[in-house]
Amino acid sequence: MANIKPSLAKGTRDFSPREMANRNYIFNTLRAVFEKFGYSEIQTPSFENLSTLTGKYGEEGDKLIFKILNSGDYLAKTPADLLKEKSSNKLIPYISEKALRYDLTVPFARYVVMRQHEILLPFKRFQIQPVWRADRPQRGRYREFYQCDVDVVGSPSLLNEAEFVLIYQEALRALGLKDFTIKINNRKILSGIAEVIGKPELIVDMTVAIDKLDKIGLEGVNKELLGRGFTETDLDVLKPIIMLDGSNAEKIASLKEILVASSIGLQGVAEIEEVFDYVRNFSVPDLLDSAVEIDITLARGLNYYTGCIFEVKTNEVSMGSIGGGGRYDDLTGMFGLKDLTGVGISFGADRIYDVLEELKLFPVSSSVSTRVLIANFGEEIYQHTLPLLFQLREAGVAAEFYPAATKLKKQMAYADGKQIPYVLLVGEEEIASDRYSLKDMTSGEQQNVSLEQLIAFLT
Amino acid sequence: MANIKPSLAKGTRDFSPREMANRNYIFNTLRAVFEKFGYSEIQTPSFENLSTLTGKYGEEGDKLIFKILNSGDYLAKTPADLLKEKSSNKLIPYISEKALRYDLTVPFARYVVMRQHEILLPFKRFQIQPVWRADRPQRGRYREFYQCDVDVVGSPSLLNEAEFVLIYQEALRALGLKDFTIKINNRKILSGIAEVIGKPELIVDMTVAIDKLDKIGLEGVNKELLGRGFTETDLDVLKPIIMLDGSNAEKIASLKEILVASSIGLQGVAEIEEVFDYVRNFSVPDLLDSAVEIDITLARGLNYYTGCIFEVKTNEVSMGSIGGGGRYDDLTGMFGLKDLTGVGISFGADRIYDVLEELKLFPVSSSVSTRVLIANFGEEIYQHTLPLLFQLREAGVAAEFYPAATKLKKQMAYADGKQIPYVLLVGEEEIASDRYSLKDMTSGEQQNVSLEQLIAFLT
Repeated sequence: MANIKPSLAKGTRDFSPREMANRNYIFNTLRAVFEKFGYSEIQTPSFENLSTLTGKYGEEGDKLIFKILNSGDYLAKTPADLLKEKSSNKLIPYISEKALRYDLTVPFARYVVMRQHEILLPFKRFQIQPVWRADRPQRGRYREFYQCDVDVVGSPSLLNEAEFVLIYQEALRALGLKDFTIKINNRKILSGIAEVIGKPELIVDMTVAIDKLDKIGLEGVNKELLGRGFTETDLDVLKPIIMLDGSNAEKIASLKEILVASSIGLQGVAEIEEVFDYVRNFSVPDLLDSAVEIDITLARGLNYYTGCIFEVKTNEVSMGSIGGGGRYDDLTGMFGLKDLTGVGISFGADRIYDVLEELKLFPVSSSVSTRVLIANFGEEIYQHTLPLLFQLREAGVAAEFYPAATKLKKQMAYADGKQIPYVLLVGEEEIASDRYSLKDMTSGEQQNVSLEQLIAFLT
Repeated sequence: MANIKPSLAKGTRDFSPREMANRNYIFNTLRAVFEKFGYSEIQTPSFENLSTLTGKYGEEGDKLIFKILNSGDYLAKTPADLLKEKSSNKLIPYISEKALRYDLTVPFARYVVMRQHEILLPFKRFQIQPVWRADRPQRGRYREFYQCDVDVVGSPSLLNEAEFVLIYQEALRALGLKDFTIKINNRKILSGIAEVIGKPELIVDMTVAIDKLDKIGLEGVNKELLGRGFTETDLDVLKPIIMLDGSNAEKIASLKEILVASSIGLQGVAEIEEVFDYVRNFSVPDLLDSAVEIDITLARGLNYYTGCIFEVKTNEVSMGSIGGGGRYDDLTGMFGLKDLTGVGISFGADRIYDVLEELKLFPVSSSVSTRVLIANFGEEIYQHTLPLLFQLREAGVAAEFYPAATKLKKQMAYADGKQIPYVLLVGEEEIASDRYSLKDMTSGEQQNVSLEQLIAFLT
């Protein structure tokens, strides 16, 4: 074999023991919250038939789908003219019939349609799996990354929206975050605004522009709106809407005035009020005031959402949104199953990881598995050290025995590097006295303990 | 969008909530054992550079690697003659530079080589991830399946082999299995046998043949040996070896006689004896007699292993091996890092799943997440039901509220289908009395409880 220097595929990452422990901490924390709210985990395969994925993510999305080359003599049945012309795009269906999962939503819709006769509605599921995109890698953007979705299908009740507000709160607090904002909007409010201005056909242009308020400011938004077919008169109407300020109650009052002529717009406001009512009923009196904020510039995947729209950001570090979601009234229409409503949220695991790292919120315990290392002083006393190791593990203590009688310094360095908090010294003296020396690797202190004391201390 | 009937890609599976809960139960049980023995989890990306994987699994293996088509205009730089000839194989390096993980070992070796200067030896890692193979799907064989590997690199001590025997025992018992056999062999014994016969160059042919003893019997093995270059005289020498019988002690005694002229063979026997000594020292006196068996017909990936070889089977149901492993003295040589010894075992998660299913060993609790469903009797009393739901969850009870005030029968059917063990009935009467009716969905019995009693009962 050639002596090649191996490398990672572009845009991918290995996860070391410490990173894995931290990632598992995040996923297990989220999993526990989802399960407490009655959601069940499912998984779908890493690759799907290409036809299942194609056409679901727009033209740009289609290009970012990783296609898998057919096995065997994959060129055998390809049209000679496509090869001759080097028509990369047209050739794809001939040489690739499978593709890697691009998100969790489309495979979930496929799952629901295939199992529509066995699934009990409302179906509450969560899914934590990697997805793959042929994006240009850059800082914080990978070609393989995890998505973490929670959805309920088959229930139009706004109770679900209220529960998602609670899930966000409980999950983020469980992860140690203290200051975050759950932004809420409603697609119907956006429709209402476009209707009030008299340009319902420009709703997408309008939302694309006002979604950028944070980044480009009012002047920038206005410039973009003019370029997209709005007039100066429209801008005058839009300005108080875009700059909507005050408490949630004040925003609701303003929106009711602004949207008085649009029944769909008022419905959107009413939906948010209903969600707020439920959240209040849930006995979380301060949640609405402290962490929930109406933001009518929030659009997120507008073509997709039909009701409430969510987005979450932390206020403790500078970071984009760490989650989002909303209601979509046609989850499974793409596979011919009509009128199945869904609502869901997602958590951005990679960004949450970075936030917790920056705020030093990962518990030390999550990355330390071994509690004690028994130092190895030679084979002659294995009949004492091995039973000791066995008894510690029987008592549930994660324990290791250094597998060679090398210099103690080297064994200590191993414990240190692996962040093992204690080293147990078992020499001939200790065996004779039936008491062992336990060294605390942080303080450097040593104590003399019996086996019972040792187990009691470590458990 | 066309009304297409979606389907799964060939050879792949969805995992429903019940299956996921059971799979998580297996993985979490294994994970806990691995961590107790001081192993840390890592993960590598789903795809690697094609050059990292090619040539590592033999010619047949290479064909089974799923290649990922390059993005964009992937045909642009392909040689016209290869396209014209439709040379599927030769074209691959031009249109594919990435491929899906085929096993966990090669990516792990790549990981170790890339991090050789930061990794602390011995490096004890485990890895539980899917792998993909373009095999023809059949019953029990999938194109996407999980591997579950535990390895230590950089430690030649046979203590590690002894610990793997303990890990197998502890993990399988933790999963509820009672009767299993951990078979052990040593590559050096096989070398010794070939040496004693005077045909060391036929070691691979010999082991391939005797590995089939279980399936084709002694006559079949003999026939195959004759076809592979052995003589009748050789068969006479081999017969007592192949049919080696008795206790482990008796087998060791016989092997020492048979291999008296082969120092490598005797070394193999001595290694097994040393492993047995350690296991005995670990205070598991009956483990060796009850569950460990020397089996010199065991070969498993002979070209790979250099020392002890393991294989595990359950004796409770008819099933192939549910795990295996061994020592390999050149894990990272393929990437130019020489003389790094490794030893490891793996667990066959899919087969273990089938075994536990057949023996009904999955705990009921693993597939039930929600403990109680609060029935919905209408929006008028949400100010009572929602706080109740909130308080149950605050107390750590996984609880759901049916999101619509539909017929009780339908709500009960939901609880039933989701195997929720209790339904809480909260009507106006209950609110007035501050006591609730809790229905046990298994027995059908109903009891009248206060909130405190309810929480005490459900936690």
